[in-house]
Amino acid sequence: MTELSYAIIGTGAVGGLYGGRLQRAGQEVHFLLHSDFNHVRRHGLRIDSVNGNFRLPKVKAYHRASDMPKCDVTVITLKATANTVLPGILPRVAKPGGTVIIIQNGLGAEKYIADIVPKSTVLGGLSFLCCSKIAPGHIRHIDYGLLTLALYTRSGRPGGVIPVMKDIAADFSNSGTPVKLIEDLLLARWKKLVWNIPFNGLSVLLNASTLELVRNPHTRTLCHALMEETIRGAAAFGREIPAAFVKKMMRDTDRMEPYDTSMKLDFNHGKQMEVEAIYGAPLRAARSRGLSLPRMEMLYQALCLLNCRNKRQPHK
Amino acid sequence: MTELSYAIIGTGAVGGLYGGRLQRAGQEVHFLLHSDFNHVRRHGLRIDSVNGNFRLPKVKAYHRASDMPKCDVTVITLKATANTVLPGILPRVAKPGGTVIIIQNGLGAEKYIADIVPKSTVLGGLSFLCCSKIAPGHIRHIDYGLLTLALYTRSGRPGGVIPVMKDIAADFSNSGTPVKLIEDLLLARWKKLVWNIPFNGLSVLLNASTLELVRNPHTRTLCHALMEETIRGAAAFGREIPAAFVKKMMRDTDRMEPYDTSMKLDFNHGKQMEVEAIYGAPLRAARSRGLSLPRMEMLYQALCLLNCRNKRQPHK
Repeated sequence: MTELSYAIIGTGAVGGLYGGRLQRAGQEVHFLLHSDFNHVRRHGLRIDSVNGNFRLPKVKAYHRASDMPKCDVTVITLKATANTVLPGILPRVAKPGGTVIIIQNGLGAEKYIADIVPKSTVLGGLSFLCCSKIAPGHIRHIDYGLLTLALYTRSGRPGGVIPVMKDIAADFSNSGTPVKLIEDLLLARWKKLVWNIPFNGLSVLLNASTLELVRNPHTRTLCHALMEETIRGAAAFGREIPAAFVKKMMRDTDRMEPYDTSMKLDFNHGKQMEVEAIYGAPLRAARSRGLSLPRMEMLYQALCLLNCRNKRQPHK
Repeated sequence: MTELSYAIIGTGAVGGLYGGRLQRAGQEVHFLLHSDFNHVRRHGLRIDSVNGNFRLPKVKAYHRASDMPKCDVTVITLKATANTVLPGILPRVAKPGGTVIIIQNGLGAEKYIADIVPKSTVLGGLSFLCCSKIAPGHIRHIDYGLLTLALYTRSGRPGGVIPVMKDIAADFSNSGTPVKLIEDLLLARWKKLVWNIPFNGLSVLLNASTLELVRNPHTRTLCHALMEETIRGAAAFGREIPAAFVKKMMRDTDRMEPYDTSMKLDFNHGKQMEVEAIYGAPLRAARSRGLSLPRMEMLYQALCLLNCRNKRQPHK
């Protein structure tokens, strides 16, 4: 256990689970909350996890970033659609010379953050987790748990593993969250997109579970084609994802319980979907290398219409 | 007015309107009906049309093709999804040496019919019509009306205009349905697909009207891209559709009242959609010329899943 202090920006399912575990393990943790602030300030956090339930009756809860102390490690667990609030938050919370971790899907968030806090080390985090908030301050974690961390570099080249990553990994592991440190952030991001790009968008567009999408022969072929386009996108940045990886993703999905993707949950709840992070940013990256990915683009365009429509209708 | 006798195979909106007008004008017309047989046999047809309302209290209605006389002109106005019944019907109804007209969207029906009745002249019909059946035997025609007819040839080459086409056109025109005779069926079919391919499928997938699809900048770009893929498909068969045609289709759609496509109406009513005729057949045709049309294919695959799901659920 280190002496590092942690800030959790966005105490939803992922932030609540990771931050709650860090506090339980004795770390200093400061939670920034939005809608759940009053509830959590009074009642703390409640976590039901496959790895053990626990309650934290008292947590350091904040409604405004300006009330928070500067922290060694700032963990961003907002939805990508909320990233526009970060320029108003990070300069107040992230200690200069400290570390900012962005745990999100899609591409492009690390550069955005590095531009906001240029004196911070920026890590990209990929969370493989089935976890949801079922009530204010009440989180249910039902499966998986690995957190992958990698160093962001402006050049886009693999950044290797630096000492602070090992310290943070030790804190997380000690608190109950297994961490894998990897050298190549961009490769990890594109690999995660290989699954996210077909299943998130198609599950929304077709109101389908992952199981229905892989069982129907037509959409199974389409998922394959979308995965292959994603691999071509990665290849344009010098990242080789072997064809065997596609096979593995399909096999894993065959074996999964029928699953509602995070994008489908957002859509069902009338929330903005992470369309720019998961589709827009990869498409623009590919286009910058002269690459056209027509199926991915079509999914992007269709989801944009749905997002526009959702924005016009007030949250139910 | 000629002495030609007519059979209407599938007396829905289009068959009821065209056949009803022919009878009103004094032609001999025989109507084959399925679900509306009992009603129409007793009460005849009722047509509310922008070009004039009329009733036909008595029509020659049939429930079985085997009860019908052989007719000079057989007009098929079934949905493409019902074409599997034609091998049981056409040999009984179509007079050898007579004419069979297939009024349908999509590609491939003429060859299918020519194989069933090789001694008939086969014409392809394209109907530009806003028309629906609002109750048994009760048809409402709200706009447009042009019927385009062209000769089918096994070679796929333009067949020109032969005398019987002029006779049939005279009967239709005389009855109140304007007819345009054209030389190149395949060009006409692909041109109609330029509109049908983007708007039918996307309106279902996104539960959107034509107006929403052209107003949203993302789906407007997508409609353009799908139209351009269709034009590439046509070009693979030596049919050149100028870019100006795409512009005209978009402008026409901008000016249309928000419109539910026929595919969307089928989907909303839990009926099978014409996915094979409008998407499957053009895709296979393009593939036979070594052409891949990824957006069209993706739309096809997505719609196939919806059609499968509709098939499993009983009609509501």
